[in-house]
Amino acid sequence: MNTSSEKTRITVADVDSIALGATVLGTGGGGDPFIGSLIAKRNLRRYGPVELVSIEMIADDDLVVPIGSIGAPSVAVEKIAAEGELTSALDAFERSTGRSIGALMPIEIGGGNSMLPIAAAAARQVPLLDADAMGRAFPEAQMVTFHLAGLGPGDTVLVDAQGNEVITRPKDGRWSERLARALTVEMGGSATMIDYVYPGSVARNCVLPGTLSTARRIGEILTDSKIRDDSKVRSMLDEFSGYRLFDGKMATIDRSVQGGFTRGHAEVVGTGHDKGSQFELYFQNEMLWAKKNGHTMAVTPDLISVLDQTTGLPITTETLRYGARVTVVAFPCHAKWRTAIGLRTAGPRYFGYDIDYSPVEVLMNNDIK
Amino acid sequence: MNTSSEKTRITVADVDSIALGATVLGTGGGGDPFIGSLIAKRNLRRYGPVELVSIEMIADDDLVVPIGSIGAPSVAVEKIAAEGELTSALDAFERSTGRSIGALMPIEIGGGNSMLPIAAAAARQVPLLDADAMGRAFPEAQMVTFHLAGLGPGDTVLVDAQGNEVITRPKDGRWSERLARALTVEMGGSATMIDYVYPGSVARNCVLPGTLSTARRIGEILTDSKIRDDSKVRSMLDEFSGYRLFDGKMATIDRSVQGGFTRGHAEVVGTGHDKGSQFELYFQNEMLWAKKNGHTMAVTPDLISVLDQTTGLPITTETLRYGARVTVVAFPCHAKWRTAIGLRTAGPRYFGYDIDYSPVEVLMNNDIK
Repeated sequence: MNTSSEKTRITVADVDSIALGATVLGTGGGGDPFIGSLIAKRNLRRYGPVELVSIEMIADDDLVVPIGSIGAPSVAVEKIAAEGELTSALDAFERSTGRSIGALMPIEIGGGNSMLPIAAAAARQVPLLDADAMGRAFPEAQMVTFHLAGLGPGDTVLVDAQGNEVITRPKDGRWSERLARALTVEMGGSATMIDYVYPGSVARNCVLPGTLSTARRIGEILTDSKIRDDSKVRSMLDEFSGYRLFDGKMATIDRSVQGGFTRGHAEVVGTGHDKGSQFELYFQNEMLWAKKNGHTMAVTPDLISVLDQTTGLPITTETLRYGARVTVVAFPCHAKWRTAIGLRTAGPRYFGYDIDYSPVEVLMNNDIK
Repeated sequence: MNTSSEKTRITVADVDSIALGATVLGTGGGGDPFIGSLIAKRNLRRYGPVELVSIEMIADDDLVVPIGSIGAPSVAVEKIAAEGELTSALDAFERSTGRSIGALMPIEIGGGNSMLPIAAAAARQVPLLDADAMGRAFPEAQMVTFHLAGLGPGDTVLVDAQGNEVITRPKDGRWSERLARALTVEMGGSATMIDYVYPGSVARNCVLPGTLSTARRIGEILTDSKIRDDSKVRSMLDEFSGYRLFDGKMATIDRSVQGGFTRGHAEVVGTGHDKGSQFELYFQNEMLWAKKNGHTMAVTPDLISVLDQTTGLPITTETLRYGARVTVVAFPCHAKWRTAIGLRTAGPRYFGYDIDYSPVEVLMNNDIK
């Protein structure tokens, strides 16, 4: 369901819904949107609402400028973005390219990166594109639909809270990730980044449309007082073709920070109609692989989210706790991720898991049989 | 003695002399000029000699562009700079600033960075400024006379052999060093760098004039077949107001690579007229502190060089060996380094040595008394 036609503005009242939906789409990673939501609300109050536009409304020559944060989520939670960091990134981009911004967009709808483009669009009073380049959260900068289309990151801007500006012109998306990651560490663990800037004519064929509206709608369902708590997850799954993978109680959680990523593995003991079954979750910032009694139920790039069994609210990989009662759900990823290059970029083998990808729809059918 | 008036060109025949003199001025660090000398000779043969100009000959508006290599010297020895790396750095600078190059200059005359500007000036057929911004070698990018004048690095270019380009606009010289160092590690340990670009009117008051000619002249003395081997060091010290600190035999050498730098300490047992004395050398890439029987004889930013006792040829901190017969010499640094900011930037305390700076002339007078 596309709700963007009715709601062509983002106001303060939308921010919490978008943040909540973005956390579901963040599949356990993508960073906590809390700080970002405060900045977005402040800017919306100060500068007014943001115009939400669809990709069809962008002129061929208008530059679509993705903006987001790069760095360790655990740093971003504590290191509040400096007041001028967002706008100085946009200034640096305009100054270094001599071109002006047509519209902003989230590079990643999952997690905290859903919020910064709203704050930036409000501060600059430019339109915000209802789209992103992941449809979820992913840990590395080249895991974007532009990369799948064979497009490089182009002139890439990084600015930090100290006032440093860097423009990289990386050879390709993998080099962009390497250079940006090294700079981000030096900059104190997080930075504001602009990359994959393309004109409307190019962006039109690359971005994943409607994902900001999707996040808002998920948030609205999960907080809708007219829907009973025990029906919220079902409503969300029905509306977005998702699957309930299993209900259970968190048993063991192995989690460690390796190379800037939160990696780990969790075991879940089935409860309710899943009583007697054993589940496993593998994660690297994001939830990447879900198994039931040893059989794969869903795997990256499909979306796997862990929700609180009672409230339906999402739980991140950072906050998974022993004993928590959870419902694990999955959504099909966008078809662009199910191509050969999509799976090479963000499929299970890229993350070191020794299995081939199968769509969640296929796996769930097998399970039902 | 200024020899630049007679010799206003650099040809293939000059390269080895400059490289040798640059190794003396490199005070044990600055990187081995060998690979750089091959590239310089190739380009001089291919494109013709380079015009050597003095700072007075640079017009006020002409941009003076320092170019050099950043990274671990031990990497630069093995990782030969890619054919196009120098010129692509210059191209990136011109493209990103929209300005053209008036003259090139070495940022650092000591060691390998004496060679790259010659190679680049030949390839581009632009004049080369007879000057640098250190008068020696130092390990960090902010240890330049521009920094002492309160000037920042400005738009800073880094390119690597893979084809990546980065423009940093760091807040100050210290931040430039941090960002460039992190990028260089990611780029494979070495990169070509352009920073502290200023017009002639500004550069005139900042650079250390005549240092390329000094390097050439030192090299010429040390290889002059008309001077007896045992008089070469004396001739060099006489011409450049240097001091013989001591003669000795290398005894113990403690050397380790820490944080990308070669750090260590060596003990030297006196020989000849220094028989019975004990000497100590402290180094961090460069020789930074020389002591005789516990008393300081010379300390950074003054220049301390270790020479082979027989040939007078310089020995780097990387190649110091047990048993080697050495003559240790010192030269006064430029007066700009003896200011409060000069000593804060590259004095003994910056490198963690718990002593105050005294000029080598003063220390040697004390020693004679």
